Amino acid sequence: MNHSTEGNWMYELMSRLYPICRSITGDGVRETLQIIQNHIPITIHEVATGTKVFDWEIPKEWNIIDAYILDEEGNKIIDFKDNNLHVVSYSIPVDKYVDLDELQQHLYSIEEQPDAIPYITSYYKERWGFCISHNQRKILKEGKYRVCIDSELKNGHLTYGELILPGNTEQEIFLSTYICHPSMANNELSGPVVTTFLAKWILSKPRKYTYRIIFIPETIGSITYLSKNLEKMKERVIAGFNLTCSGDERSYSYLPSRYGNTLADKVSLNVLKHKHPDYKRYSFLQRGSDERQYCSPGIDLPIVSIMRTKYGEYPEYHTSLDNLDLVTPNGLQGTYDVLKDCIELLEINEKYQSNCLGEPQLGKRGLYPTIGLKITPEEVKNIVNFLAYADGTNDLIDISNIINVPVSDLSPIIAKLYDLQLISEL
Amino acid sequence: MNHSTEGNWMYELMSRLYPICRSITGDGVRETLQIIQNHIPITIHEVATGTKVFDWEIPKEWNIIDAYILDEEGNKIIDFKDNNLHVVSYSIPVDKYVDLDELQQHLYSIEEQPDAIPYITSYYKERWGFCISHNQRKILKEGKYRVCIDSELKNGHLTYGELILPGNTEQEIFLSTYICHPSMANNELSGPVVTTFLAKWILSKPRKYTYRIIFIPETIGSITYLSKNLEKMKERVIAGFNLTCSGDERSYSYLPSRYGNTLADKVSLNVLKHKHPDYKRYSFLQRGSDERQYCSPGIDLPIVSIMRTKYGEYPEYHTSLDNLDLVTPNGLQGTYDVLKDCIELLEINEKYQSNCLGEPQLGKRGLYPTIGLKITPEEVKNIVNFLAYADGTNDLIDISNIINVPVSDLSPIIAKLYDLQLISEL
Amino acid sequence: MNHSTEGNWMYELMSRLYPICRSITGDGVRETLQIIQNHIPITIHEVATGTKVFDWEIPKEWNIIDAYILDEEGNKIIDFKDNNLHVVSYSIPVDKYVDLDELQQHLYSIEEQPDAIPYITSYYKERWGFCISHNQRKILKEGKYRVCIDSELKNGHLTYGELILPGNTEQEIFLSTYICHPSMANNELSGPVVTTFLAKWILSKPRKYTYRIIFIPETIGSITYLSKNLEKMKERVIAGFNLTCSGDERSYSYLPSRYGNTLADKVSLNVLKHKHPDYKRYSFLQRGSDERQYCSPGIDLPIVSIMRTKYGEYPEYHTSLDNLDLVTPNGLQGTYDVLKDCIELLEINEKYQSNCLGEPQLGKRGLYPTIGLKITPEEVKNIVNFLAYADGTNDLIDISNIINVPVSDLSPIIAKLYDLQLISEL
Repeated sequence: MNHSTEGNWMYELMSRLYPICRSITGDGVRETLQIIQNHIPITIHEVATGTKVFDWEIPKEWNIIDAYILDEEGNKIIDFKDNNLHVVSYSIPVDKYVDLDELQQHLYSIEEQPDAIPYITSYYKERWGFCISHNQRKILKEGKYRVCIDSELKNGHLTYGELILPGNTEQEIFLSTYICHPSMANNELSGPVVTTFLAKWILSKPRKYTYRIIFIPETIGSITYLSKNLEKMKERVIAGFNLTCSGDERSYSYLPSRYGNTLADKVSLNVLKHKHPDYKRYSFLQRGSDERQYCSPGIDLPIVSIMRTKYGEYPEYHTSLDNLDLVTPNGLQGTYDVLKDCIELLEINEKYQSNCLGEPQLGKRGLYPTIGLKITPEEVKNIVNFLAYADGTNDLIDISNIINVPVSDLSPIIAKLYDLQLISEL
Repeated sequence: MNHSTEGNWMYELMSRLYPICRSITGDGVRETLQIIQNHIPITIHEVATGTKVFDWEIPKEWNIIDAYILDEEGNKIIDFKDNNLHVVSYSIPVDKYVDLDELQQHLYSIEEQPDAIPYITSYYKERWGFCISHNQRKILKEGKYRVCIDSELKNGHLTYGELILPGNTEQEIFLSTYICHPSMANNELSGPVVTTFLAKWILSKPRKYTYRIIFIPETIGSITYLSKNLEKMKERVIAGFNLTCSGDERSYSYLPSRYGNTLADKVSLNVLKHKHPDYKRYSFLQRGSDERQYCSPGIDLPIVSIMRTKYGEYPEYHTSLDNLDLVTPNGLQGTYDVLKDCIELLEINEKYQSNCLGEPQLGKRGLYPTIGLKITPEEVKNIVNFLAYADGTNDLIDISNIINVPVSDLSPIIAKLYDLQLISEL
Repeated sequence: MNHSTEGNWMYELMSRLYPICRSITGDGVRETLQIIQNHIPITIHEVATGTKVFDWEIPKEWNIIDAYILDEEGNKIIDFKDNNLHVVSYSIPVDKYVDLDELQQHLYSIEEQPDAIPYITSYYKERWGFCISHNQRKILKEGKYRVCIDSELKNGHLTYGELILPGNTEQEIFLSTYICHPSMANNELSGPVVTTFLAKWILSKPRKYTYRIIFIPETIGSITYLSKNLEKMKERVIAGFNLTCSGDERSYSYLPSRYGNTLADKVSLNVLKHKHPDYKRYSFLQRGSDERQYCSPGIDLPIVSIMRTKYGEYPEYHTSLDNLDLVTPNGLQGTYDVLKDCIELLEINEKYQSNCLGEPQLGKRGLYPTIGLKITPEEVKNIVNFLAYADGTNDLIDISNIINVPVSDLSPIIAKLYDLQLISEL
């Protein structure tokens, strides 16, 4: 039986988005964002080709209609319509006859994964190329081939989506995910769909913090977004999450911020430790997504990645094998639940202070056994331990860490103690 | 052969105190403190029922004359005079006939320890009850029983003992122990008797620090005492020890202060590491005695517990099996010696500073071999290592920890270096 | 094949210095320094007997012409000319007949190393003595022996060599080695010869830092030198190395400063970790050379020892077995190379700061693959990781430690990034 309600909805949205050919710019991104707009009220922004963004410049916009390779007999041996991974992303248009030798210069395959079509990009150098399974490549015969890529590279825009959900304070929680990958599932459609459903849930609840949620192309998108929003974000963002590789079921992973010492790190480690104690902890040196920008010197945002199996760490990564079979409703639900826990914890994470000197008399308030027992019940231990460290220096996460009790077990205790006026928020 | 001189005296005092029925208030406490007064000049304080102490209130005073259960044949099957653990502490008076079913509602036994009478209290909720071995409980027959508890619960006082031994400074070392347990030995008469003999020894010697030594009922006693003395204690107490479970021979134990970072922690760890390196180190989360109050937020006193086998960690705990056979003169002597070492170390723990730049010429002062040897003698190593870290930043405990030499080996070195004017106290 | 160019030269110099009888004062020291002067322009300083140096006083100067023991038949059974270790260093003159019993009072041998002549000194207490192999001692017969030591102990000087090589700043790197040991090789001629050739190399290159290089007798020499130069050195020395035991091939060793937290410690650990990861790390408690003075309270210089096999840790130590066979050109070269690496690293160790917000666009500068690959090449990883931690808080050693890449791999990257104006020095 499958309890992953949101998981199923996320999987459904992912299946809807899967066939679209996305890249860092172009109509695939626009279509993707429009479909997401059916779920959450994102604003779509366009930034023109040639705009300077920090050390970078918005590249030309790329679109593709069709692409194929014909053999001498006119058979379509490679067809973009079968799988959009077949074309190197940002390939310039081409339509000509080449012999096998020349063709080979433009083919990409993986010898060790002979059934997989690799995912290859060439955003910043103009070239054309086809990606092909190694098995197919091996049986290509000498002869003339017609290679045709009906693409366009022209001045246009970089497109991204943004959703700001105001809370009671200007302080922000930031979610970032990327929508530049063509038909792949774990890396990457899992991130956008989990982010979409997290946004839906955030929309549905009262919130202390403002939420800044963006759907961008990787690297150039985060650089673009930062170049327009950095000052504000540095003032406001208290914690953020980069959402990627959120959909398989093999593991949970955590990749820290640059020094691993931000509130985002703290909340992630606390939630993962209690919920998925066997999670895999990576080093910032193993980063490879937009935390490269968010955590770079001068940017210094408090952002981590919580993933299922990390990019680069699973065999299907960046190939046609990273498909809808690899990702499951349960896999998506798992990331969704962890992120939800992190956000809920951030929302209630306060510094608490006991209102009494010494222990309060819990017995008269029904919180302590009236008969002296050899063994103290677990909840009573949690109450007195919470109170012992509610000394105004620790926030809830600190206390959970010190007394090694998950926040889910502490929340009801805090509610009781608060109602009894035994603790205050600082 | 037994070298435990004080151990024997302590054991003797414990045997004298053992039969008295103590509780958190009442004549048993008074009698206990009067016997201790025969050894050391404690002042006995009384605090009236109803007095507010922090979040608590002094309860009614409880006294008991007699208690028993008679069977249908008039046999006294349970007799308080045999063992004062037979009555739930703070039982209200009762004298009536009950059938077995009703009786069972008021009986306490331990199935896993069928020979043991458990120790049960109900200080803050009025009830009556008897404690009984499980073996005896199992053979109780249907029928009428007469239950009689000749006790009294009335406005009165909470009683405690206090001894202030002034030293050369107002700064204080604090010892606290509790005198609220009826006939049990390790937990608890061992604490009061070790404390009594430590006080005797402190009385007999010159001292830098003032000593504050109290004999109180657990929890309500420490709360009461703190409510009357907190301000002064926060200013003055540099280190303190909660004395409990000080008498068996199975282990040494250390339970830290709330953050484990006080002078009391530092001195305890240094002494135990060198004297009993196999001591057991507990976490503050495993606390269960008056450090619950002394180390609570806002109180924040530098207090630890050094014990033999910790409460809750030995099978006889809080049963009639925690008797005079469990505690030995050697066991008591062990705690006494460790506490004595801690106090002596606190008394001489200063920051030292070398008076020379570079190493002093030890050879001309007879502290260094005059002939160059392949291997440096241990004492010479200790001298040069002590001098190396006598840089004004480390106190004696720090140096002992850094160079890993017990203070007992450093004291004679310090004396020599001081006499030779090679070091100064800061 | 032996690639140790400097190693061979160092070994040659060591062989030239080996036969000279050195002590903490006297003509052997002068002759040694004069030979070193043939290589590098050291200044020779003399400090008169009786001069106060901190807690010490310059002792009388000691010189020796000859020494021997004759047996009854007039056979020279011990001859200083065979091995200058035969005489206890600083032996007073003697010429008399003694019987075997009296002779034994003045003999030193090592039972466990029966072939070795031990190295014995008595600088600060007047005595005479001979050092002898235990095998020879065992076959001494009863009878009269003539003992003759033609030495002189008189007011004179302590002699040391000093070389100051000015750099672009007044900040100094300090090298210290000792020239007070008679004919022994690892401990100690290896230190002076490695120091001599390091000085030659430093002379040959542009340098940011000033270099202070001294050749002194151990202990009394460092105390003397410090007493004359401490104020300046405390202001200027950023890192220093005590050179000793630099010539065998068995291991690399590191002995930290007093708290192990100086720049000298940091650079040594970084170089050793990458170059000789199996190096042996000692504690400051195991010190035995001039760091005893340099790192003492109030002196507090940032000085460590990088050694091959540490004094006291090899069987030949302080015996005639520590000879020219124990030390090799390769052994010397190894220490030379590590020290050279440390010095080079100190010379370039700056805090760097990325000039971009976010990652710079490395692709357009030829530093990043233009095609998206599944696996990032190592050099590219090193570039982006270097940039990530070039945040103005870390110096080059910190970054090397954080990203775990040897500085030798980072230097070319830094050069490129600097040329491209992507980073600045702080």
